Amino acid sequence: MKSREVVLANRPVGMPKVEDFEIREVELPNPSAGEVLVRNVCMSVDPYMRGRMIDRKSYTAPFGVGDTLTGGAIGRVERSNHTQLREGEYVESHLGWREAFVAKDAGLRRLGELAAPASAYLGVLGMPGMTAYAGLLEVAELAQGESVFVSGAAGAVGSAVGQIAKIKGCTVVGSAGSAEKVRHLTEDLGFDHAFDYHDGHLERHIFEGAPQGVDVYFDNVGGDHLQAALNCMRPNGRLALCGAIAQYNATAPVPGPNNLAIAIGMGLTLRGFIVSNFNHLRDQFMRDMTAWVASGEVKYRETTFDGIDKAPEAFIGLFTGANTGKMVVNLS
Amino acid sequence: MKSREVVLANRPVGMPKVEDFEIREVELPNPSAGEVLVRNVCMSVDPYMRGRMIDRKSYTAPFGVGDTLTGGAIGRVERSNHTQLREGEYVESHLGWREAFVAKDAGLRRLGELAAPASAYLGVLGMPGMTAYAGLLEVAELAQGESVFVSGAAGAVGSAVGQIAKIKGCTVVGSAGSAEKVRHLTEDLGFDHAFDYHDGHLERHIFEGAPQGVDVYFDNVGGDHLQAALNCMRPNGRLALCGAIAQYNATAPVPGPNNLAIAIGMGLTLRGFIVSNFNHLRDQFMRDMTAWVASGEVKYRETTFDGIDKAPEAFIGLFTGANTGKMVVNLS
Repeated sequence: MKSREVVLANRPVGMPKVEDFEIREVELPNPSAGEVLVRNVCMSVDPYMRGRMIDRKSYTAPFGVGDTLTGGAIGRVERSNHTQLREGEYVESHLGWREAFVAKDAGLRRLGELAAPASAYLGVLGMPGMTAYAGLLEVAELAQGESVFVSGAAGAVGSAVGQIAKIKGCTVVGSAGSAEKVRHLTEDLGFDHAFDYHDGHLERHIFEGAPQGVDVYFDNVGGDHLQAALNCMRPNGRLALCGAIAQYNATAPVPGPNNLAIAIGMGLTLRGFIVSNFNHLRDQFMRDMTAWVASGEVKYRETTFDGIDKAPEAFIGLFTGANTGKMVVNLS
Repeated sequence: MKSREVVLANRPVGMPKVEDFEIREVELPNPSAGEVLVRNVCMSVDPYMRGRMIDRKSYTAPFGVGDTLTGGAIGRVERSNHTQLREGEYVESHLGWREAFVAKDAGLRRLGELAAPASAYLGVLGMPGMTAYAGLLEVAELAQGESVFVSGAAGAVGSAVGQIAKIKGCTVVGSAGSAEKVRHLTEDLGFDHAFDYHDGHLERHIFEGAPQGVDVYFDNVGGDHLQAALNCMRPNGRLALCGAIAQYNATAPVPGPNNLAIAIGMGLTLRGFIVSNFNHLRDQFMRDMTAWVASGEVKYRETTFDGIDKAPEAFIGLFTGANTGKMVVNLS
């Protein structure tokens, strides 16, 4: 059986290009004892993957040039020589960027009965939803009724952040990159205020939605957003540092916020985190989020590309604002 | 009775100059019912005061031009019309930058029997000591046996930080601005490693003293020190942001650390604080620190100027590295 995979052809410099990727066809072996053959239904592209394309020491090893990329994927077991995994069932794996694979169960998570379309398990019910949940509730210690600002609010993580904060009775302000995304945030997702960051008046917009300032800033963007947020924080405010998409393609070091010293007098806490350190919250997250999605309290949107050959384009689209909600590549 | 006071003549631009200050002689009234006349024995100059000389919104109101400056001072009650305060007893006040004052008891703290020379209550047994204690133990949540880096280590706060960390069984690295200060840190105060930051190889020096990296960074300096420390942190490290003396005299915004995004992957927490929010620790601090000073586990040094007219010079000296340990102005 053949499967197509996406290989890192070169390390991107600056904004990634489709030529930095290569589609390769491989022949899959038959699953031996204890192995399964899984056909991926959909795969995830996420901003953090840009960091792994750089050759540097980080919390995960860099991708190797010439190697098949990896990432979140939802697949169906097509053939099983495994005692636990049944043919036809859905599994979540970290073996994305490929149409199918043969593996032992290591790293496969059984999804059981799906409570939503499979792709939701890449987004609101998957890593991005869990990132929002852990970042807001544990990293930022969000309390009922506080004011929250989230950047990249129309993305997979940001849109979950805003809606969870609303469920917790908070005032929610979000930034996004287009008028249509801003409309989506306030009209579809219930944000109290949203704005297009392109005019550059970030502080003014934030204070418009949170006139007394912000208790919690959930940072997906870094750069000017982080600097502006620091100017809008209330005493003892918390900043959950989740991502810095504004600088992932930078080719030189980017200066940090020139007002970080505000943190001293205001008693601010900036805390960086990666979701994999919060697995102790996973069951609670799945329970809560499944219920919120079922009740319609949390809505989600996806931007979809079809076919493994479109995966590079989908990935690049993360940095040009092509997605509203989760960026998903359909493989079935 | 006459008293001399130091008045803010102009708002300093860049490094403060003695001409930014003016000595004014005032006539003190007799203390009326409920008031005391206090003669200050010594007064404090502290780096944070530079911030209050700028006309901007902050956690304390700015000093007014033409107004007498304020700050920590230790004095003796010379005449009392107050039922609780006795003539001859020592009080701590925020009415420094003056030789004497008449006041009601508001804001005066009785020191009781002195356990050390009066000036120690401006330093190791006062605000700087308490800053070190609260910052290390509560803000940075220091644990037994961790690795600590402190900048400005030969200053009043930094030298207390290093010694408390040693008492807690930690490995301690400090930076300072001269070979003599470096010698003082390792030979007199028991630091495991210390270095003169002027050669610019901060990371190399930090790793020399903490080859596995740093769990806690206590930041008194900001700027290049904060950036270097970020590069040396261990996973889940904590950075207590206490001061940023490197940039207090800047005339334009100073770029922040260009590597702040490290905090995401490493799960770092940066927490700013001001000591006045940690008054709940005061009794515990006084008990611990008085015992440590008595046992010699914590040593302290002072750099002394004599006479109120030397206070501006002492203050400016904070920014030129003139002090080892607490900078004190003797007034008696």
